[in-house]
Amino acid sequence: MSTPNPASEFDLIARYFAPLARAFPGAYGLLDDAAVISPASGNELVVKTDTIVGSVDFPLDMAPDLIARKALRVNLSDLAAKGALPRAYLLDLVLPVTADERWVAAFAAGLERDQAEYGVHLIGGDLSSTPGPVTIAVCALGEAPSGRIVRRGGARPDDTIFVTGTIGDAALGLAALQGGLGKLDDVARRFLLDRYRLPEPRVTLGPGLIGVATAAIDISDGLVADLRHLCEVSRVDAMVEGRSVPLSAAACTVIASDPRRLATALTGGDDYEVLFTAPPGAAERIRELAQSTSTPITPIGRITRSSPGDASRVVVLDEAGRAIAFTAEGWTHFG
Amino acid sequence: MSTPNPASEFDLIARYFAPLARAFPGAYGLLDDAAVISPASGNELVVKTDTIVGSVDFPLDMAPDLIARKALRVNLSDLAAKGALPRAYLLDLVLPVTADERWVAAFAAGLERDQAEYGVHLIGGDLSSTPGPVTIAVCALGEAPSGRIVRRGGARPDDTIFVTGTIGDAALGLAALQGGLGKLDDVARRFLLDRYRLPEPRVTLGPGLIGVATAAIDISDGLVADLRHLCEVSRVDAMVEGRSVPLSAAACTVIASDPRRLATALTGGDDYEVLFTAPPGAAERIRELAQSTSTPITPIGRITRSSPGDASRVVVLDEAGRAIAFTAEGWTHFG
Repeated sequence: MSTPNPASEFDLIARYFAPLARAFPGAYGLLDDAAVISPASGNELVVKTDTIVGSVDFPLDMAPDLIARKALRVNLSDLAAKGALPRAYLLDLVLPVTADERWVAAFAAGLERDQAEYGVHLIGGDLSSTPGPVTIAVCALGEAPSGRIVRRGGARPDDTIFVTGTIGDAALGLAALQGGLGKLDDVARRFLLDRYRLPEPRVTLGPGLIGVATAAIDISDGLVADLRHLCEVSRVDAMVEGRSVPLSAAACTVIASDPRRLATALTGGDDYEVLFTAPPGAAERIRELAQSTSTPITPIGRITRSSPGDASRVVVLDEAGRAIAFTAEGWTHFG
Repeated sequence: MSTPNPASEFDLIARYFAPLARAFPGAYGLLDDAAVISPASGNELVVKTDTIVGSVDFPLDMAPDLIARKALRVNLSDLAAKGALPRAYLLDLVLPVTADERWVAAFAAGLERDQAEYGVHLIGGDLSSTPGPVTIAVCALGEAPSGRIVRRGGARPDDTIFVTGTIGDAALGLAALQGGLGKLDDVARRFLLDRYRLPEPRVTLGPGLIGVATAAIDISDGLVADLRHLCEVSRVDAMVEGRSVPLSAAACTVIASDPRRLATALTGGDDYEVLFTAPPGAAERIRELAQSTSTPITPIGRITRSSPGDASRVVVLDEAGRAIAFTAEGWTHFG
């Protein structure tokens, strides 16, 4: 490390990370080789890991507390989409040799803040160095009633498709950051950038989906791509009414001035909202769930029967009922 | 990716990683957002994560199957030291943009081989890209009887200190790789290099330590450093007889020709052997355990009472009973 009095990895762990493990007995204060965790009786553990890489998934100059919170939240979003209650996480933090102790302190402060917000605890991890960009892998552990998590594969023809929150803000925020949006008022710009920088996983809603949703997925690759992923596993097709997709006021402004940005909103990634399906008869329960968890939930289309032998199709209709053509469906790392 | 027909991350997962998850129902074929896992009745889950970084923890030109196996094994070693039976793992694979599909195929083949050897299954993961070196974070999950894992903190004065296998081979292998060992016959060189490249975690021994060992740690930072870690948590000191530390024939040859290399052996890292303590009365059970699990186990010293208020002391005695002074005790990432 580049500080005048460099701290060893053991010092850094003791100073900044061990306090984050204090309230979880099985973490043993990060003073052992491993941690222990058990689900409550009747529950099973739900595990998910996701990595974010500097300059690929976030700008290198992003504030370290926001990087930490984003790394944690993208994992909590997956647990929420499965109906799991998050409990703990492990952290692999790979630091460039140029990182200094203040960076680590701010990163840990971000984790502390989100631990309080989401009721999770650090229970293990690893601190390494790299000649490359800062890289953060989080492995999140939650729990759910055994055999009951909401899978991707349960969607059936005539199920309604729902999404939480608003769609496309993060993708438009990234476009704004890259200077691609032209004129935009400061409030709208800030809103979209915030949505890109820091997702808000639907942790409160998650467990309420069990027994209501037939299938669910978190939207990280883009609405159209993730709906397709769900359809592929469920072996169904989907029809989305473009005008029903919930957009923020800022996104509406952007799209009104450049209608091609609708495609950015519907196919860009990083929403971290939940997309789920439910049979028509569940509408009343979903209204109650939206109210009791203060989560905006909007129906955007329905599941249809798949053409036998074909790949799953996701069709988005415009206001005139014509299918909208997209040049790219979401975001992948390679290819 | 740099191949003529680049594969998307979804293609790579389907081709190379989904087959590794086939035998574990809760992995859902890697087709969902998360996996589920439960310990057997009366057990709890034991979790551990460790990252290895290209050019830091292994040479960039190392064969991809060996990199994969090393990434998995360093985690299994920690589970073994806690007495846990390994069951599953999650994998965060961060690939440089120059990686090609053959590299990924060879990497996955290494995992497949070790899954068969250790009885573990891939249950989740993430594939990302980086402008930096290949980086692999593994989160391993095992299980052990609830409340019974072997901690670092249970060593008591008069306990005997044991290690498995031989010590220092990996550190000498690294020295050989860096050209620091001078003349060395090919068999010895190859043996030491192999020990550096691919650890052999004591997975078979692990569960046998429960109820026998009072404390344990896996030796990854070096014998002296890791014994000190154990002593710090146990609040004791330790005395090691240098001549009792088990050395391979190759290590003996190196040290005979350059006695200063004893320090390399005792303080270098990457042994991935288990160090544990047990009361004198446990000697017979430990002999049986060594035999039943075909694991060489050697007593190397004993735990002593700590001087009140002082940091834990680890003293290594030479043949004349004098304390050996080391300039560095093991290996840290920073500082």
